Amino acid sequence: MKFGGTSVGSLERVRGCAEIVAAECARGDQVAVVVSAMAGETDRLLTLADNLGFGLGDEETDVILTAGEQISAALMAMALTEQDLSSRSFLGWQARIRTEGPPGAARISGLDASPIKHAMSDGWVPVMAGFQGASGDERLRTLGRGGTDLSAVALAAALKGACDIYTDVDGVFTTDPRIEPKARRIEKISYDEMLELAAQGAKVLQTRSAEFAKARGVPLRVLSSFAEPGQSEGTKIMQAEEIAERRIVSGIAYARDQARIALRGLNDNPGAAATVFAGLAEADIGIDMIVQSPSREAGLSNLEFTIDRRDLDKALVRIGESEARDVSSETGLAKVSVVGLGLNRRADVARILYGALHEKKIGIRTVSTSEIKISVLIDNDEVENAVRALHAAYGLDNA
Amino acid sequence: MKFGGTSVGSLERVRGCAEIVAAECARGDQVAVVVSAMAGETDRLLTLADNLGFGLGDEETDVILTAGEQISAALMAMALTEQDLSSRSFLGWQARIRTEGPPGAARISGLDASPIKHAMSDGWVPVMAGFQGASGDERLRTLGRGGTDLSAVALAAALKGACDIYTDVDGVFTTDPRIEPKARRIEKISYDEMLELAAQGAKVLQTRSAEFAKARGVPLRVLSSFAEPGQSEGTKIMQAEEIAERRIVSGIAYARDQARIALRGLNDNPGAAATVFAGLAEADIGIDMIVQSPSREAGLSNLEFTIDRRDLDKALVRIGESEARDVSSETGLAKVSVVGLGLNRRADVARILYGALHEKKIGIRTVSTSEIKISVLIDNDEVENAVRALHAAYGLDNA
Repeated sequence: MKFGGTSVGSLERVRGCAEIVAAECARGDQVAVVVSAMAGETDRLLTLADNLGFGLGDEETDVILTAGEQISAALMAMALTEQDLSSRSFLGWQARIRTEGPPGAARISGLDASPIKHAMSDGWVPVMAGFQGASGDERLRTLGRGGTDLSAVALAAALKGACDIYTDVDGVFTTDPRIEPKARRIEKISYDEMLELAAQGAKVLQTRSAEFAKARGVPLRVLSSFAEPGQSEGTKIMQAEEIAERRIVSGIAYARDQARIALRGLNDNPGAAATVFAGLAEADIGIDMIVQSPSREAGLSNLEFTIDRRDLDKALVRIGESEARDVSSETGLAKVSVVGLGLNRRADVARILYGALHEKKIGIRTVSTSEIKISVLIDNDEVENAVRALHAAYGLDNA
Repeated sequence: MKFGGTSVGSLERVRGCAEIVAAECARGDQVAVVVSAMAGETDRLLTLADNLGFGLGDEETDVILTAGEQISAALMAMALTEQDLSSRSFLGWQARIRTEGPPGAARISGLDASPIKHAMSDGWVPVMAGFQGASGDERLRTLGRGGTDLSAVALAAALKGACDIYTDVDGVFTTDPRIEPKARRIEKISYDEMLELAAQGAKVLQTRSAEFAKARGVPLRVLSSFAEPGQSEGTKIMQAEEIAERRIVSGIAYARDQARIALRGLNDNPGAAATVFAGLAEADIGIDMIVQSPSREAGLSNLEFTIDRRDLDKALVRIGESEARDVSSETGLAKVSVVGLGLNRRADVARILYGALHEKKIGIRTVSTSEIKISVLIDNDEVENAVRALHAAYGLDNA
């Protein structure tokens, strides 16, 4: 049972989560708990480091950030003790979470869950601090934003159990209910669809944790910690084959504040583009919606792609170091994505998309598709309109 | 070099301390740093635990409290890096500080300083989180209030070095300068006098750390982190024999808010008093100024002693569980103590004490003496008067 930042955002909320855990234990389940830092705490701690000029990615920043989950894990163990359960906290290093990779964005390279297994078989409810582990040389490391989901899925895999992700919404919705009140809770969804939704902007679950769950076959559930114990039905995330009833489209995701970079007259061999992308990858900048087209000039080509707006300055510096000439960028853009296992089997998916957006007079800058996703790049201002239009057009509106 | 809570109370202060460390390194010294939590942080964290009904002494409370020093150690390592030093933090467990005893009041049972020695011989300036260690079963433990002094002295002993305690005052003073502006900084003082001053209310140094320094012969210095680097002269604490010039009296300490408990008609054998004190010791209540006198009734005696006012309720409960009858208590009292190596050699010490207090019409409730200390119990309201009168009478006033 993983509880996110808003779920443990106050002592009252921590107590509420402890009641949910106690109800689960009362049903006879063996439970391990994983917690995030209290909402806002990670930002507060990061600001301390930032103000000394050391941001995310520094070893000592990680030492500071891990304190957030350390505190909430201990508080949760106290609240569970209050529920007459035997409970204690485990910090990442105490749970033997071994990491590789840089501070601020480490990967879990090993999880010897034996101390936690031990505690569980002794009748304890262990509470593990999420988002953290220790490197081979015993330095504290964080797993990157949302890393507590990954901690929880990795622990569930090691325990050969299922993973319930408790958040502030009652599962995964067909789209953001704040934009489209007709959005419905999705009862079951495949790992791949969940992955695409997460990658395309749905914030309910971290991408890496969905990948990890898929690879290790960990049954996932996303549900609400704000409901009374046992009252949240949530969304089950599973293999596509296990889902009997298939919809064409599962959901509509969106990501505001995208930027588009256009490189014109790039040398027309794959090496030139590769050099550009290598520089961006090194700076940990995610790339999406790549469009390459031949230039009017022979031997040259044009390359366009989108990135997060907040990465733009960093990206332009990197690109400036490459051979690319004639670089332009545009901001104020948003990405809206339609995700569904049925997309690859239906020819009229694109027709519906273009039709619905055309009817609302929403201009499309770029389109990009995958097996189970189709994304359009539009103006930031059109996000609400586009999400509602597509939600209706693909038959997702609540009856 | 140990920096206390006010010394690292803000990021600006942390930077100031880092400059002091850099200046020390520039003089060619090999330096290890030990830090407290930022001022107020330990109280804030303790309140979190308290609000869940788990106070000091709980295992999970310790997990929460250690986060305070964890954060300040990392911030200090960052600030030292800013000073072009190679620096990293060491948490208690990473420095191999092994503890015994209960959460909230653990003792250091072992300190394998090898990771810190290693870092120092590689040219690093290690920053150890004070106040913490880990028990044999890997649970985080705190050393009790002021425990960072103890961490620092223990580390200095393990490194066969000297220990500089940086605080917000320029050393140990003949008395509290807020009460007596004529108070002077003491240049050199013996461990024993420092111990008595600390035990009798001077807050500049934790008692246990002075004891530890004496036992292991660690040269101590108390100085100010608020002065420019190298500008604080501070107070050196050393063996009595090393101090050439001897004063009769070194300083006047005071502790407000004392309570006096009187047990009348106690069974006149040492066992009865022992039972009372055993109960109080179990509750970790410090006893002082014990006066035993025969009762008018044969076979019975009266027992009086003082404790901290805040321990009074707890103490009365414990005493209620013993055989003692006719228990009374009095509050609103204060203890003023004269400390000096010369006290045991001078017959007129008591005369000066009684004379000075009589002249100011200050009533004395109880007097208690040791080799190097004489304490009087007076009204809380008379503390300032008494401190000033004794400071002058023993010739401590600044010329």
